[in-house]
Amino acid sequence: MRNLKSVLSYDGSGFMGWQVQAGVRTVQETVEAALQQLLKHPVRVTASGRTDAGVHALGQVMHFFTSSSIPPDGLLRGLNALLPRDVAVRSVEDAPPDFHARFMAREKTYAYVLHTAAVRNPFLDRYALQVGRPLDCGAMREALGTLVGEHDFASFQGTGSAVKTTVRTIRAAGLVEKGDRVYVWMQGSGFLRHMVRNIVGTLLMVGERRLEPADMSRILDLRDRTQAGPTAPPQGLYLVGVAYGGSVTP
Amino acid sequence: MRNLKSVLSYDGSGFMGWQVQAGVRTVQETVEAALQQLLKHPVRVTASGRTDAGVHALGQVMHFFTSSSIPPDGLLRGLNALLPRDVAVRSVEDAPPDFHARFMAREKTYAYVLHTAAVRNPFLDRYALQVGRPLDCGAMREALGTLVGEHDFASFQGTGSAVKTTVRTIRAAGLVEKGDRVYVWMQGSGFLRHMVRNIVGTLLMVGERRLEPADMSRILDLRDRTQAGPTAPPQGLYLVGVAYGGSVTP
Repeated sequence: MRNLKSVLSYDGSGFMGWQVQAGVRTVQETVEAALQQLLKHPVRVTASGRTDAGVHALGQVMHFFTSSSIPPDGLLRGLNALLPRDVAVRSVEDAPPDFHARFMAREKTYAYVLHTAAVRNPFLDRYALQVGRPLDCGAMREALGTLVGEHDFASFQGTGSAVKTTVRTIRAAGLVEKGDRVYVWMQGSGFLRHMVRNIVGTLLMVGERRLEPADMSRILDLRDRTQAGPTAPPQGLYLVGVAYGGSVTP
Repeated sequence: MRNLKSVLSYDGSGFMGWQVQAGVRTVQETVEAALQQLLKHPVRVTASGRTDAGVHALGQVMHFFTSSSIPPDGLLRGLNALLPRDVAVRSVEDAPPDFHARFMAREKTYAYVLHTAAVRNPFLDRYALQVGRPLDCGAMREALGTLVGEHDFASFQGTGSAVKTTVRTIRAAGLVEKGDRVYVWMQGSGFLRHMVRNIVGTLLMVGERRLEPADMSRILDLRDRTQAGPTAPPQGLYLVGVAYGGSVTP
């Protein structure tokens, strides 16, 4: 039995998220169907984590087992020929038998794309949050910086999730301005449900000067979801990559 | 009566082209419906030219008449609030009474986007032609250069069009490589139906070394559509802007 590690990109617009759910189109179900067609046996894939409906991935990582002897290059080409146009496999490689895409993920990188031009860009509707006005990026950068480190992120946890601890570590975070786009990125050992989108929703209030940069750490300390900003919509969010051992993918 | 000039962007993916056609969603019909809602009277808009189904516009130009006294800024905001997310008005301005978006267009700029990476990019499916392999850009640039100037472009005219003359002038053209994307652009006084896509289809054969750069001018001289390459698909094509008088829009 081989254990294969694979990196995927997908445009989340047409999917109800990663995880298999009856009656809706999900990335997992789509990838498993293509694998089954190629490998001639049922396949279950395990991702580094779920992504929500509308959230994109540049470098989602998954693993799966197969008895097939098709070499990794053949799997890559075969899968991309079978997959619909909004998902692509970027790489396939044989992994150690104990490799686990979720449990062994050491670090994830997310990016959130904001568009600040006054006029909507019709090409960004599904790929960014169109804010429609300039943001105070200096204030946002300052607020974002206060989140780096190990903290209890309960204030930024989505409702309805049951986790043992809401303590997480953001190892690095930053904000890049490029023309009328603003890219917020963060790297961490793991993220709570909706954590990135809740942080971005709060950052936006700072960018719009409805909150001060110092309010970010105050909200963090309150450990109360009702004190933070709204959840930013999914279409601006990208799972950029997942790191295992020493290297980040991609 | 005011005559208004307006610049539009649209993602062509969800439209059956510019022109009103019964029973299908077109850009013209969508824009006219929004204008009618805003201005409270039926409106007919005239564009610089039609775009085909799936073709995008960064700077399509149109004009329309109205008796409304809403200032240009109010029209811009009102229209963008009423239009669906895949069309946006970039500017609205009062124009001279005789301004005509089609007859007075002096120059159009088109761009065609090619993606050359071996693995499909799921985000580019509707926005580029994914060639899936490297192209000989030097050869393509050389072939493209032979088209600049006034020529009879009959070899690159789409079938089913009735025009008085197939002579057109390409004032400038170029090819830009940026990572795994290749941008082919051309500016001209006017283009025949499918002319840019037919040129790109032939250029691709040069890039894949199925034709020599010198074959381009040979094909041009034959004035025979059957000698040129296939029509490149619409999703890679962008109407970048239209020039009137001295200035290019955008």
